[in-house]
Order: sequence, then C-alpha cells, then structure tokens
Amino acid sequence: MTGSPSSDAARATTPAEPITAEELQLALRNHGMPLEALRYPLTPVGLHYLLTHYDIPAVDPATWTLEVDGHVGRPLRLSLDQIRARPAVRTPVTMECAGNGRARLSPRPLSQPWLIEAVGTAEWTGTPVGLLLDEAAPLDGAVDVVFTGLDHGAEGGVEQDYRRSLSIADARAEGPILAYEINGQPLPPQHGFPLRLIVPGWFGMTNVKWLGRITLLAEPFDGFQQMRAYRYRQDPDEPGVPVTRMPPRSLMVPPGFPDFLTRQRFLPLGPCRLEGRAWSGCAPVDRVEVSTDGGHTWNAADLEAQIGQHAWCGWSHAWHPRGPGVYELCCRASDAAGNQQPVQSRWNTGGYANNEVQRVTVVVGEPTAGPPAG
Amino acid sequence: MTGSPSSDAARATTPAEPITAEELQLALRNHGMPLEALRYPLTPVGLHYLLTHYDIPAVDPATWTLEVDGHVGRPLRLSLDQIRARPAVRTPVTMECAGNGRARLSPRPLSQPWLIEAVGTAEWTGTPVGLLLDEAAPLDGAVDVVFTGLDHGAEGGVEQDYRRSLSIADARAEGPILAYEINGQPLPPQHGFPLRLIVPGWFGMTNVKWLGRITLLAEPFDGFQQMRAYRYRQDPDEPGVPVTRMPPRSLMVPPGFPDFLTRQRFLPLGPCRLEGRAWSGCAPVDRVEVSTDGGHTWNAADLEAQIGQHAWCGWSHAWHPRGPGVYELCCRASDAAGNQQPVQSRWNTGGYANNEVQRVTVVVGEPTAGPPAG
Repeated sequence: MTGSPSSDAARATTPAEPITAEELQLALRNHGMPLEALRYPLTPVGLHYLLTHYDIPAVDPATWTLEVDGHVGRPLRLSLDQIRARPAVRTPVTMECAGNGRARLSPRPLSQPWLIEAVGTAEWTGTPVGLLLDEAAPLDGAVDVVFTGLDHGAEGGVEQDYRRSLSIADARAEGPILAYEINGQPLPPQHGFPLRLIVPGWFGMTNVKWLGRITLLAEPFDGFQQMRAYRYRQDPDEPGVPVTRMPPRSLMVPPGFPDFLTRQRFLPLGPCRLEGRAWSGCAPVDRVEVSTDGGHTWNAADLEAQIGQHAWCGWSHAWHPRGPGVYELCCRASDAAGNQQPVQSRWNTGGYANNEVQRVTVVVGEPTAGPPAG
Repeated sequence: MTGSPSSDAARATTPAEPITAEELQLALRNHGMPLEALRYPLTPVGLHYLLTHYDIPAVDPATWTLEVDGHVGRPLRLSLDQIRARPAVRTPVTMECAGNGRARLSPRPLSQPWLIEAVGTAEWTGTPVGLLLDEAAPLDGAVDVVFTGLDHGAEGGVEQDYRRSLSIADARAEGPILAYEINGQPLPPQHGFPLRLIVPGWFGMTNVKWLGRITLLAEPFDGFQQMRAYRYRQDPDEPGVPVTRMPPRSLMVPPGFPDFLTRQRFLPLGPCRLEGRAWSGCAPVDRVEVSTDGGHTWNAADLEAQIGQHAWCGWSHAWHPRGPGVYELCCRASDAAGNQQPVQSRWNTGGYANNEVQRVTVVVGEPTAGPPAG
C-alpha cells in the first residue's frame, strides 16, 4: 500500500544537503524499526532494524559447515546439528547500528542514511563462543579471532567477504554467542541464517551474519571492516579509534497519530503517558529524563527493570500538557558508567554513534479539534 | 551494521530532484524486498515489502472483534477464534505496492519514494470474504463493502481510519479472504495482526490491515483512500480512474556481487544464469523477455509455472557475455490479456503503477579481475 501524494509544501523542507540516489537505494533495501514498535519488549521478526552490506547469501543448511581454524591446536568443522547439540544460552540483546543517527549530522557522511530508528531487541539462542574456542585449543600467541561471513561484495574499492574480529579476550568473555535462533525460531535469511555472531553491548557491525569461518590469528587483524571502516575519525587520514560498544540512548513512542507524509504528530488535549525504552552497551541504564519544552527543563522518567543484562529497559512519564499548542518532546538516558546522551553529538567522518537526544514535535489540540490542514 | 562512508563521488549523482526529508523518513520506516530475495518462491517474513500509512496499531486479540454491519439483515460480531473456525483457504499471493516505481518518475510525485522493490509473495490463510458476507445477509441495494482498519492518522488534510472499499460483486467473487496467517504463522503486527483483507491480483492498498469493521453501503463509498488517493490522474483536479489490479512486471535477481554504497554490480566473465520472477494481476504471465544490451534486442526467457493462480512465476535465461565490459540487463513481462511492460511508463499525479522495465548495470570482468576502484 502507499499513500497519495500531498501538496508540494514538503518539498520546501529538503535537507540542507540533498539525499543522493545511492542513499535512497540503501534506505529502501535496509530498514529501521518503526518507533511505535518500542512498545514490544522483544521486537517481532520483521520489525527489528536490518542493514545488509552486500546481498543476503543463499545458504544450503544441509551442506553448510562452520570452520574453526588458524592459530589453533585442533581445527574444527561443524554442521549446524553439531552446533545445536552444544550447550545453549538464550538471551535478549538490544542491537543498534553504528550508523544510527548518521543522517542527522551535518555535513552528512555518505552511507546508509539512518535517522534514529536503527535498533531492535531480540532473544537470541546459541552456543557460547568461548566454549567453542576452548574446543579448538588456541595456541599460545593467538591475539585476534576473525569471524567471516558468506556475504561477498566490494566496499571502498576493496573486494571482500564481510569480516570482523574480536580480541581473543573479548571473544572468550561471557556474552558472545553463535546464534541459530531469534525469538525462538530459526534465523530468517536476513538475520544471518544459519548462524551468526552475537556480541551483547556492541554495535551491530560486530555481529557477523551468515558465519562460515572463525580464524584465530597470531597478529592483529587488519581487514577492511576493522581498520578502514568503523573507526572514529575527525579526518579521513588518521588511524582513528575502533567503534565498539553502544553509548546510552533512549527513544520514545511518538504519541498521538501521524500525518502519512510528514509524520507530523497530533494529540488530543488531555493527560498523556509518554513511554519508550533506553539502553547502553557500556553499563546499566540508571536514568532517563524527559523534556516537554525542547530540552529547557527535564524530568526524571519512571524506569522499569532491564529485560535482560544486555537489553533495553522501559521508561514512562506522565505528561499533562498545559494547553493546546506545539510541543517539542525529548528524552535522554544515562548509564551507571557516567555516560549521558548529548544534546549535540560530536561529528566523525563515518557518522558513527550519533546518540543526540531524540526530538518529537507534537501538535496538541482540543479533543474535538478537526484534522490538520492539508 | 552499517558500512563505512565512501568517497564523495556518489554525491555527484544526486537525483534530478532532491529527495526530501519527509521522503527519507518514509523510506526508513517502510521497506522494499531486497531483490536477491526473488530467489524464494514464498518471501520469508521480514523480507516482504511493507508500507504502513500511519502507525502500526496495538491490538489485544483477547478483546478484538470484527464487526460486520451496515446494509445487512444480520449484523455479525466475531472473535478471532470464531473466524478461525470458519472454512479456510490457503493461497500464495503476489502483492505489490501501487506506488512501486514512483521514484523513477520525473517529476517525482511526493510520497513513499519506491524504486522497484515494493513487492513480495506470501501464502495467506483465511476465510473467504464472500462466505462471511452471505452470513450477514446483505440487503437489496447494497453496492459497496467498506473495510475499516484500526490504523488512525491524517492524510491530505483528512483525519481518518484507513478505509477502502470493494464493490459487492468484487468482494463476493472467488479470491478475497480475511487472512489471519502468513506463511503458516499468525500475522505479525506489521502485516495486520490479527486480521487483514487479501484481494489477490489487486495492488497492496486494497489489502486493508488490522481489520476492525466491514460495512455494507447502499451508496458508493466516497472515503479519502477511494476517491482522493489511488486514482490515475494526469491533473490533480480531474476525478481520475481507480487504481485496482497490478499490470505485468518482471524483476531479476541482480547477478554478481554489489558495491555496498553504489550497489554497482560486478560479475566474473563466464556463463551466467539470469533469473527472476514475473507477475500480473490481470491475467496469467505468458512471456518474459530478457535484454542484455539495454533493450535493443530481446530474448525469450524460460518460464516456470506460477506457484499459484495469484502468484508470480519464476523465469531464467542462460547468458554468455561476449567479453568483459559494461552491460545493461533488462527484463519485461507480458500477460495473456495482452498487457506488456512498457519501456517508459505513462506519468500520473500519484505515481501509481509505474511498471517500466527494470534495468541492471553490471561490470563483467575477467575471473581474476581485481576489486572495483574505490
């Protein structure tokens, strides 16, 4: 289904820098989580955000195997059944794209043009990475663990299989799993069927999909997605700092109802329960604040418990608009490590980790107010 | 996950008319089917295209009911269990958004900016609309059947519940069902949980989601989505012609592998099996043709049987590129009613039903060719 075109009014609000044809292609392939889906503690399959670097590969689970090789004493080759027969954990994990918020930066780094919706929480079932590494008997001197996906493409002039690494300490820590189920079902193709890496607390690019191989290295991994992409830089020529864990962020369910085209929100006058969710990959969320005046004043929201050690927590705030008018609603989260969402994020060349506070404009009217002008 | 930004080269290829901030918001909320998913006869949940006019509503299945009322002798009020207890059919249906292809038009009508990927095929299970209407005993003079969704918003200045109608003849025909399952599972929220209308052969907007009410009218329905939106018009002031069935379209799986940012395709030199799917809501697909020279010459593709009366059919074509170089691949479908995809579609104010032939540019190289320049 699609809506009817509206007037040309919205064309006047073109972003400062036009969205390119390439960005539009990416925005239509990939998709965010519609913010009303914040109502679900676990994001239903099909609503979780998705970013696919290249194409979704076709994998035949009957012939697929996972290889564990490199700097190990006992290389492994495992079928999916063999992996499913190993000790399993099931854990809810909030995952966010490192590029979430990129399209709000100026100048806008050229890549998937996310606004704020590249997030989701799923319950992943899999076997701990550490146990499998132990089985493979890493040799002394192993420093990095490289996870190779079956997705093949080119990026920045480099033809590659998608590949990311963790230090051996990070890979063996409690947390990372090799997941074969999402929300109790086998992974669908777009989420990495038949097996993917899940590293709770880290940005999405860490969680390699369509896993085919795990390779231990005696030297640091220098692949494209590790050393060129996913680094915080102010200048393209500096080596930069690796992008790892998610800083705190909170999002609200936009209240009221929307206009199809502009997404402008309308809300009848009366008490309104603002609600949403907040997460941090660095430490537990310990505070969410809400502003209903564009960030001038803030009020503490009520926090629910996190639904898991690595997943978001719900928050809510009773709002009584003082009268009809236009309000700008904001929310911001802090975590126990002292990180807080900024009012304005620091720019970087990749547009990573822009966790600036969300701003939602709502038109509050009398309960009997007519529709917005067309 | 998200890719690293690339050079500024792609910024030079900005569309003739910049994509607006509103269009970007819509493109990130809604999503197409990545074209490699044409490999699946039934589109996995989460890959089927999605267009949500307003917000996905929260529905409690324990209290939800479907009302059938209006110009009937026996109004009905049914629980989900009561609907599931009625005669059921399960049928694969190809569904396409009426706005598919809109962003390829010039000037570009302002709405969800689809390129070509707003399609999917699912197996829907539900009870025939006609049987339920018979139960409600339509009164003489009933002409239209109005389907009302629980999604509420504003569009073109009109506050509304999403609402579309069928003539009583179209509603009672073989085909339309009230569906509660997709691919054998309960509808997920984004596909209309707990119940939606499915009208095989018609564009997506017909298939009202989150159904709450079916109302028979003794006069033609004049709601926004029927009389203002979804009409073919050359001028905004003319009454226009209703958008109903899907004309033929074929799509191919883009061969080779892509560059992340530009989606440019690369293919080693050698034989290549081009493949894809084709559909028409008007009549069976009777021909698919493929061009590997930008539409100058065409070759008949091999057609598979349709996977159902109302679903797409697979096609394939053996291609032997004559040497390295840049090729523009095209495909076009015809149906038994004599409709064929045009090389250039006729423009209309809503940007509906633009089924111009797909064009995929691929760079064919030696098998050992290096990566594309960055």
